[in-house]
Amino acid sequence: MTRPDVIKKVIELLQHLPGIGPRQAERFAYALIDMKAEAPRALGESLIALAAGVTRCQECMRVVETGHRTCATCADGAVRHLIVVEKDQDIDAFERSGITDTGFHLLRGFILGGPDDAMVRDRIRSLYARIETLLKNPSDASVEITLAFAATADGDMTAAYITKILEPLASQKLSITRLGRGLSTGSELEYADRDTIKNAFASRNKTL
Amino acid sequence: MTRPDVIKKVIELLQHLPGIGPRQAERFAYALIDMKAEAPRALGESLIALAAGVTRCQECMRVVETGHRTCATCADGAVRHLIVVEKDQDIDAFERSGITDTGFHLLRGFILGGPDDAMVRDRIRSLYARIETLLKNPSDASVEITLAFAATADGDMTAAYITKILEPLASQKLSITRLGRGLSTGSELEYADRDTIKNAFASRNKTL
Amino acid sequence: MTRPDVIKKVIELLQHLPGIGPRQAERFAYALIDMKAEAPRALGESLIALAAGVTRCQECMRVVETGHRTCATCADGAVRHLIVVEKDQDIDAFERSGITDTGFHLLRGFILGGPDDAMVRDRIRSLYARIETLLKNPSDASVEITLAFAATADGDMTAAYITKILEPLASQKLSITRLGRGLSTGSELEYADRDTIKNAFASRNKTL
Amino acid sequence: MTRPDVIKKVIELLQHLPGIGPRQAERFAYALIDMKAEAPRALGESLIALAAGVTRCQECMRVVETGHRTCATCADGAVRHLIVVEKDQDIDAFERSGITDTGFHLLRGFILGGPDDAMVRDRIRSLYARIETLLKNPSDASVEITLAFAATADGDMTAAYITKILEPLASQKLSITRLGRGLSTGSELEYADRDTIKNAFASRNKTL
Repeated sequence: MTRPDVIKKVIELLQHLPGIGPRQAERFAYALIDMKAEAPRALGESLIALAAGVTRCQECMRVVETGHRTCATCADGAVRHLIVVEKDQDIDAFERSGITDTGFHLLRGFILGGPDDAMVRDRIRSLYARIETLLKNPSDASVEITLAFAATADGDMTAAYITKILEPLASQKLSITRLGRGLSTGSELEYADRDTIKNAFASRNKTL
Repeated sequence: MTRPDVIKKVIELLQHLPGIGPRQAERFAYALIDMKAEAPRALGESLIALAAGVTRCQECMRVVETGHRTCATCADGAVRHLIVVEKDQDIDAFERSGITDTGFHLLRGFILGGPDDAMVRDRIRSLYARIETLLKNPSDASVEITLAFAATADGDMTAAYITKILEPLASQKLSITRLGRGLSTGSELEYADRDTIKNAFASRNKTL
Repeated sequence: MTRPDVIKKVIELLQHLPGIGPRQAERFAYALIDMKAEAPRALGESLIALAAGVTRCQECMRVVETGHRTCATCADGAVRHLIVVEKDQDIDAFERSGITDTGFHLLRGFILGGPDDAMVRDRIRSLYARIETLLKNPSDASVEITLAFAATADGDMTAAYITKILEPLASQKLSITRLGRGLSTGSELEYADRDTIKNAFASRNKTL
Repeated sequence: MTRPDVIKKVIELLQHLPGIGPRQAERFAYALIDMKAEAPRALGESLIALAAGVTRCQECMRVVETGHRTCATCADGAVRHLIVVEKDQDIDAFERSGITDTGFHLLRGFILGGPDDAMVRDRIRSLYARIETLLKNPSDASVEITLAFAATADGDMTAAYITKILEPLASQKLSITRLGRGLSTGSELEYADRDTIKNAFASRNKTL
C-alpha cells in the first residue's frame, strides 16, 4: 500500500526545480497537502499562467508578457545607458537597488569556453548592433555600457572578451564601464583576498 | 519597468513552500520560464490534481485518494502490527526500507507541551481505540505496536507519554516496542555520544 | 615592517595541526599573544613533555607513559574481551561511555586497499596471536572480540576482512561480535537510510 | 585504565585556543603524538619563545619583539598615512596585499556600546594625539587617516564615531578616508544586497 499516484507525480515534477532532490520534493508535497486546497490550486494555476503568459523581449531578452515583441524600455528607445548582465535575477537585483533609469542587455550565460558560448556570442553580437544604432541616432549624444558581472573568474573573462569585441566602436562618445570593486556589505578584512583589499584601498573615499 | 505580474505571482506563491525564501523562489521561477512550456504546465496541473484528489484515511491518517474513507490496509483490517510515526514522510521511509506488512498510525506531531498537543493527544486516543478493537477481535491473537520515532528528546518524550497512556492495555497479547538504537549508517565512534556507544555495545551481534 | 619572526614561526608550526590553515593559525597565534604569558608557556611545556613522555603499549598500541612496555590492562592479562578499534579517539569514546572492563586492540587505520594496509595487516596478525594466547590460557574460558568500527564502507570492509582472517580460530569458546546498528542519538527517520531503518526495526525492543 | 596525564594536560590546554572544543583538542593531541617527537617539541619551544619574546609597540600597538618600545615604522616617524584597523590580523591582510608604505593604528576592538569600549576609546584618544603631532611637524605636509574597518554594522558605527571625534582637527591638510565599497572577489549580483550594488554601480570604472 503506497502513496497515491497524484502525490508521486507531484514529488517527481517538483524535482525538476533547481537543487530539489527527492527528500525536499516530498517535504514540499506533504506541506502542500496540509495547506488549505486553495493554496496548491493557486500555485498550480499561476504555473499554468506562467507557461502561457511570458516570452522574452527581442532586444534585451528580459521576460515580458506574451504578445509584446519588446519590453517597454526597448520599445521607447530613449535610454542610452545599457547594463549588460548574465541572468534574469541580476536585472531584479538592480531594480531592487533603485537603479531604474537604464536599459538592460541579458547574456543568459558567460563565455566559458564550452558549447553554450555560441548563444552568449550571439547575444554579444546583438549588443554590438544595439550600440551601433545608439551611436548613430542621434550622432552627438553619448552612450554608456556597464558590464555588470559577478566578481568571479567567469565574470571577469566575459567582461574582457566583450571589451575586446567592442574595441572597434571605441570613441569619445562611448564609455564601457565595470562595477566598482571593494568591500561588499558584511566583508571582514581578515577574510578578504588581496585584490579586494587592494581595490578597496585604491578606491577609498574621503569622509572628513 | 519591472517583471510581469504573472512572474511576481509565481515567486510569491512559491514562498509558501517550506524553507523557500525570495531568492530561491526567483530561481525556481526563472528556471520554470526557461523550461519548455510543458514542464510548468504539467507541474501546475499536478498541483491542481493534488488539491482536488487527496484526503486522509480516517483510521491511520495517511494520505489516500479522495473518495476513500480509509486506506487499503485499514479497510482490510487483517494487520495486527501498527507502526506509530510522527509524520507522512516516516511512512515513506518505512516503505522504502521494504517494511510493508504492517499498518501505520500517524500522529502528525509530537507531544511538545504546547497547544498543538491537543491534536496529537486526539491521535493517541484513537490509537488506544484501535488497539482495543484489535485485542478483542479475535481475542486470542497477539498485537504489536512499534513506536517509531526520531531518536531525539521530543521523540523520546512522546514515546514515554504513549507508553504510559497504553499501560491499562498491558497484557501477554500486547507488545509495545521501540526502534533499536546503535550506530546508524555513516556514524563514526569519535563523534558518537555516550548513549549511542552504550546502546551499540549492548546490542552487539555475533558475526563468527 | 612585518611581524616578528617568533610569530611567523608559531603560525607556521601551528599549521601542522590537522585541518589548520594559515588564517586559523594566525588567529591562534594572536589569541596566544593576548593571553597572559603563562598560558602559551604552559601549552609549550606540555607539548615538550608530550614529545618526551609517551610511547605505545607493545600489545594493544594504546598510548602509555614512556618507560612502560605495555599498558596496565595488557600487563595484567586477565581481560578476555578485546575491543578492536580504528584509532586512539575510539578508545576514549568507549571509556567516556563507561565501558572499562575490556581490553583494546588498536589498528591505527582501516584496510583501504592502499600501501598503509601493510601496517594494519600487521596489527591484525598481532590480534590473531593475542587471541591464540587467550584461548590457550586457560583452555576452558571463553574469549570475545568486538569489532567496533565506524558504520562506513571502510569500517564494514575491515570488519569483513578481519572476520575472514580469524575464521581458523572459530570455536565454541570464541565470539566475534560487531556493534549493533540502529538509530543513533539525534537520528530522524526521514533522513535515515534504508539499512538504518531496517536494522532499527529488526532490533526493536519491548518497552511494555 | 585511562590516558596518561601528559595527554590530558595537552588536551585541556589546547582547548584555550579560540574555537577548539574537546574533540578537536583530542584530534590535535593524537596527531602530535603520531608526528616525530621533533614536531611537538619545536611547536612547544616556539610557544615558550612567543610567551617571552613579544610585546606591543607603544604607538600603534602592533606586536613587536620584546625590548623595543615601538615598531620600526613608528620609531622612524616619517610616515604620514595611518591605517586604523580593528585587530592584528587586519595589519597582516594589508601587508599581504602589498600596502606597506603606511603606518597603522590598532584599536583592538570596535565601539560596541559595552564595557570593552573604554579600551577602544583610549586607543582613539591616542590616535587623536598622533594626528596632532603629525599635523604640527612639519606644519605644511598633509596627513591621511584611513579607517579600514569591516563592512559591518559594528565597523560602520566605529568609523562614524571616530570621524566625529576627529572633527575638531578638520583642515585642508587632514584627510579622513574609508575603504571603497563594491563587489568583493567572488560576489555574485544575485546574492549582493542593495547597498553593495548601489555602491558598485556608483563607483563603476571605465574600461574602454
